[in-house]
Amino acid sequence: MKALVLESVKQLSIRDFPITERVGPFDVKIQIKACGICGSDIHYYTEGAIGDFVVKEPMILGHEAAGIIIEKGEQVRNFALGDLVCMEPGIPNMRSHEVLEGIYNIDPEVVFWATPPVHGCLRETVVHPAQFCFKLPQGMSAAEGAMMEPLAIGIEAAKKAAIKPGDTALVVGCGTIGVMCAISALAGGCSRVFISDIKAEKLAIAGSYHTNIVPVNTGKVHLQEYIMQETNGLGCNVVFEASGSPQVYPDFFRCAKKGGKAVLVGMMNGTVPLDVALLQGRGLSIETIFRYINCFDRAIALVNAGKIDITRFISKTFPFEDSIAAYEYAAAGHPDVVKVMIEL
Amino acid sequence: MKALVLESVKQLSIRDFPITERVGPFDVKIQIKACGICGSDIHYYTEGAIGDFVVKEPMILGHEAAGIIIEKGEQVRNFALGDLVCMEPGIPNMRSHEVLEGIYNIDPEVVFWATPPVHGCLRETVVHPAQFCFKLPQGMSAAEGAMMEPLAIGIEAAKKAAIKPGDTALVVGCGTIGVMCAISALAGGCSRVFISDIKAEKLAIAGSYHTNIVPVNTGKVHLQEYIMQETNGLGCNVVFEASGSPQVYPDFFRCAKKGGKAVLVGMMNGTVPLDVALLQGRGLSIETIFRYINCFDRAIALVNAGKIDITRFISKTFPFEDSIAAYEYAAAGHPDVVKVMIEL
Amino acid sequence: MKALVLESVKQLSIRDFPITERVGPFDVKIQIKACGICGSDIHYYTEGAIGDFVVKEPMILGHEAAGIIIEKGEQVRNFALGDLVCMEPGIPNMRSHEVLEGIYNIDPEVVFWATPPVHGCLRETVVHPAQFCFKLPQGMSAAEGAMMEPLAIGIEAAKKAAIKPGDTALVVGCGTIGVMCAISALAGGCSRVFISDIKAEKLAIAGSYHTNIVPVNTGKVHLQEYIMQETNGLGCNVVFEASGSPQVYPDFFRCAKKGGKAVLVGMMNGTVPLDVALLQGRGLSIETIFRYINCFDRAIALVNAGKIDITRFISKTFPFEDSIAAYEYAAAGHPDVVKVMIEL
Amino acid sequence: MKALVLESVKQLSIRDFPITERVGPFDVKIQIKACGICGSDIHYYTEGAIGDFVVKEPMILGHEAAGIIIEKGEQVRNFALGDLVCMEPGIPNMRSHEVLEGIYNIDPEVVFWATPPVHGCLRETVVHPAQFCFKLPQGMSAAEGAMMEPLAIGIEAAKKAAIKPGDTALVVGCGTIGVMCAISALAGGCSRVFISDIKAEKLAIAGSYHTNIVPVNTGKVHLQEYIMQETNGLGCNVVFEASGSPQVYPDFFRCAKKGGKAVLVGMMNGTVPLDVALLQGRGLSIETIFRYINCFDRAIALVNAGKIDITRFISKTFPFEDSIAAYEYAAAGHPDVVKVMIEL
Repeated sequence: MKALVLESVKQLSIRDFPITERVGPFDVKIQIKACGICGSDIHYYTEGAIGDFVVKEPMILGHEAAGIIIEKGEQVRNFALGDLVCMEPGIPNMRSHEVLEGIYNIDPEVVFWATPPVHGCLRETVVHPAQFCFKLPQGMSAAEGAMMEPLAIGIEAAKKAAIKPGDTALVVGCGTIGVMCAISALAGGCSRVFISDIKAEKLAIAGSYHTNIVPVNTGKVHLQEYIMQETNGLGCNVVFEASGSPQVYPDFFRCAKKGGKAVLVGMMNGTVPLDVALLQGRGLSIETIFRYINCFDRAIALVNAGKIDITRFISKTFPFEDSIAAYEYAAAGHPDVVKVMIEL
Repeated sequence: MKALVLESVKQLSIRDFPITERVGPFDVKIQIKACGICGSDIHYYTEGAIGDFVVKEPMILGHEAAGIIIEKGEQVRNFALGDLVCMEPGIPNMRSHEVLEGIYNIDPEVVFWATPPVHGCLRETVVHPAQFCFKLPQGMSAAEGAMMEPLAIGIEAAKKAAIKPGDTALVVGCGTIGVMCAISALAGGCSRVFISDIKAEKLAIAGSYHTNIVPVNTGKVHLQEYIMQETNGLGCNVVFEASGSPQVYPDFFRCAKKGGKAVLVGMMNGTVPLDVALLQGRGLSIETIFRYINCFDRAIALVNAGKIDITRFISKTFPFEDSIAAYEYAAAGHPDVVKVMIEL
Repeated sequence: MKALVLESVKQLSIRDFPITERVGPFDVKIQIKACGICGSDIHYYTEGAIGDFVVKEPMILGHEAAGIIIEKGEQVRNFALGDLVCMEPGIPNMRSHEVLEGIYNIDPEVVFWATPPVHGCLRETVVHPAQFCFKLPQGMSAAEGAMMEPLAIGIEAAKKAAIKPGDTALVVGCGTIGVMCAISALAGGCSRVFISDIKAEKLAIAGSYHTNIVPVNTGKVHLQEYIMQETNGLGCNVVFEASGSPQVYPDFFRCAKKGGKAVLVGMMNGTVPLDVALLQGRGLSIETIFRYINCFDRAIALVNAGKIDITRFISKTFPFEDSIAAYEYAAAGHPDVVKVMIEL
Repeated sequence: MKALVLESVKQLSIRDFPITERVGPFDVKIQIKACGICGSDIHYYTEGAIGDFVVKEPMILGHEAAGIIIEKGEQVRNFALGDLVCMEPGIPNMRSHEVLEGIYNIDPEVVFWATPPVHGCLRETVVHPAQFCFKLPQGMSAAEGAMMEPLAIGIEAAKKAAIKPGDTALVVGCGTIGVMCAISALAGGCSRVFISDIKAEKLAIAGSYHTNIVPVNTGKVHLQEYIMQETNGLGCNVVFEASGSPQVYPDFFRCAKKGGKAVLVGMMNGTVPLDVALLQGRGLSIETIFRYINCFDRAIALVNAGKIDITRFISKTFPFEDSIAAYEYAAAGHPDVVKVMIEL
């Protein structure tokens, strides 16, 4: 079938790729209709690796997708042919400890699309367990469905933050994940969410989303001072780190209210300096995020209810035949782009 | 000073009432500007008692209030003369176990306005600890400030429900407290909130508030069947009981999703039948609500952010000199009334 | 193979029973070495049904078991032939919502031994998923291993109680499950555990276990008065209902400390009267127990560490050929019996 | 009155010190009977400062104390003259946000004994709010009572760890606080607690306490390898950092089980390197400890129940007149000393 293949570093091709997938009794076959480009896709494209995950063979990219069910296994209930679904891209080993403990996201045997050596789903069809497919409600497009994957990370962050009604939050980092955290925190009960970055264009997009998402340009103001001034010197109940930048950490924790929660979403290599005494004196606790647990249903429900408007973050859409151009566009890092989408 | 006095059952008078209150070092004196009428006020007015609390002497009514600080103790920081504030009406014994354990609401020595033998605040001025006063932001009216008290109960219910982003909720009972729970649950992270009652007018008010508050007329549909149909047979993550009607209990628990949470807000005399096996088989847990803990700040923040529109629930406003008419109007139980407000 | 078969109500036979079980790739075949008799086994034996679960065909009894692995599927890791294991008797549908949400115990499709129409394991061999088998440490006997199932219920109750170090607890009901709750609560962090019943012999067994398990004979003292006297009028942080008797409920909740937790373990038909205002005024929350979630490892660890002495609760042991006598003995309800064990 | 006074760095004297304390209506006056020497006392003695807290005037040392009530305010209930009590040494501002939120330990206005400029309690008598005094049960000595303060830190750490029954824990650091964490974690529900250090004598003391406290000499074995070997490659459910040594941090987090909890107890200056990706990949959360919240009652209950044997950690006792020798002995850092006690 036709697929977008990462042949080697910086070498993409759209070509026929031989894949034979059997539709097992609990699986569905999905005709892909939309697939977003994630930062990890770009990393593999431009560098060929993320940490220990190295692309050694040609690999199909893409893991944020939605499509139409065109075939289903004999044991599949709840889905009909023709259903438009989005898919959770990681499948745990259902016989792991982690699954029974409700933390399937950190099962070390998770098989995740477009994480070498596992192929992604930017191709004509894909076979997936029905358990990890989610029907999109009437009126939701495939492109919106493909957005559920990055949104699910924001939802997971907001869920683990245990937001209480009326909390204030800070999100450090206004990239795609930062924006997803901010809109999830707002929908998830916060009264106000500050989002900080040094890129004015990104902040402008976030700030235009809602009056209660307050952009903070840390190229112009001092983050801790600004937050303290805006919160009567108390700080934010929840602070989300979504930049993956080690240098923001010292200020980051100082923006949290006493007894507050810090949620580490942004990934990075290496270490950050942690001021243990600061955390102790403020009574902070820390949660860490790795993908998501049971968040696709939640993401869909919030979008369907109109509490989250996800379409406005689809900055530019390309047809499948222009996928390579789409990747080049995404890799260029335009400051006013949140998500690049490919439609099939 | 002038006050609305419950002289005896069904006997109200507006008259001078001798009260001498000293402004202690940590207190403020507040000129009352608005005071709502609560169901408990009506109970004392029409029946002279709520459970063991019996009105034996003339008592000033009212506990949902806001006003202007006109005097302050020497140790009071954070407030200035002229500040418009609302007040948390219950003051715990700060030397109790409960205060140190963060559950000051159930300190048995709480002194609560308009709970015999403690006078209420529907009078010219009141002295209150600054610790239990909350400054209203620019643009919030005294009447809105007085609404923070009933809203705080909804916030407490939503807080204890530990809502996760995208949850669905059911509120049983569309009285003032039910409505406060519904709007708090929606602002607090729910994607959709069902609210049920048999009174069409009340449901119409709730349903007009927001498209995601879904009225359910249980005079016309079967609650459990309706909820299951609307939730793909799963039920609601959180169910709030806000009617105080024993007869709703059996259906109420059956509307909860497996692993869900039931929050008991409505107060009642006597007992309700509890089907323990049903709860066990559904893996439910139960939280109970009694007033609120640290919720006024949260209520104000959500209203100030525009996430909760509280003014639309002030159904009718009377001037202080018509307080008796206001009480009669509130006691009449008009089906399209959520809150009756008195302004001074 | 030889099995203990419930032919019909009160009709047991030990006989050959035709069962063909295939050892799948993730399964093990276990030679049963010990199997305890549970209250539910006795119910099926004496009444032929528990609620909607009715024995319509001859059914093998028993679900509290341990044995030796004598065959294993090709994909089984972590186990070797000859390993002594105990088994979690309920297997959820691994494709259910409940499994992914970490609440596999309430998956409606759980297949549970000796719950009609599913056969039990009081037979020569049984095939079971390796995922639900737990290796017993050196020195633990098969009979002890078989006790892990009832103990797991106590552990689940203690886990959901979220015991804090030094809590006091009350367990109402001194049957097997009550005793398991008490010893789990003590091992799980309580400083003192009261256990109440009207049967002096059962209380004597519980009381002899440890000085910090305090028997309370409610035939002789008033439960609430006694508990309040022993706890400086505060009540217990956690109260476990393990009797399944509706009549204990009113007193039960009154023994809880303000802000405390009530854990409903005992199963019953019908309803109990719930005083909602009492719960609200005390700020109580309620958890409900249905079997267990990931508790076998915990039970084994506590027994292996010597923090729980489980052998003393094996009151009498019968060989397999005397299984019918064992059931008759268990059904007789001797007051000094906690658990009747059958060894193979 | 006679007191142990830190005149300046390394200059102690036992002398009359002029203190006039008024017994307010809610206070008690206590005749001190025992006072332990804490690491912070030694810091002030040998260095004159801890971080920003600098001893500028002669200051009485000591904050771990117990004594007899010899006078009480008119409003004091629950205590009688002659009662032996221990005291929580930090008194928050009862009008702070933190108190109402149940986190009084991090109120910035806490007044804490022997923290400059506040005097300690190693003197004849002290006046203290009754709310922060705790009656010792029959049979508990004043020296044991004085141990409740360091034990309370261990209890707080175990409480915040949210230990589940049967958890395994690791405590890094075998100083006084590490030992308190270990015995609290064991009493608080763990099946086994590893404690690591490089000092063999300290490990020997901890290891002799209970068979389920397992010493790990990290001078001889590799911590992570050892822990993984002992836990079937899973790691510990809870890991406590109680050494205050930055260099242990990398290994420390690697000893935690997936989904586990890290509790930071040890205080230090500067920062530690935090590997965010490691935490995310393991799904860890972090809690931080600063003193304690409502832990004295818990500590007393566990000691009184015999679940914690605290006397064995009183390594050496001096009479008050030898206080200076006691401080010199404590400052010498004998490896087999857990706590040095002074009796009056």
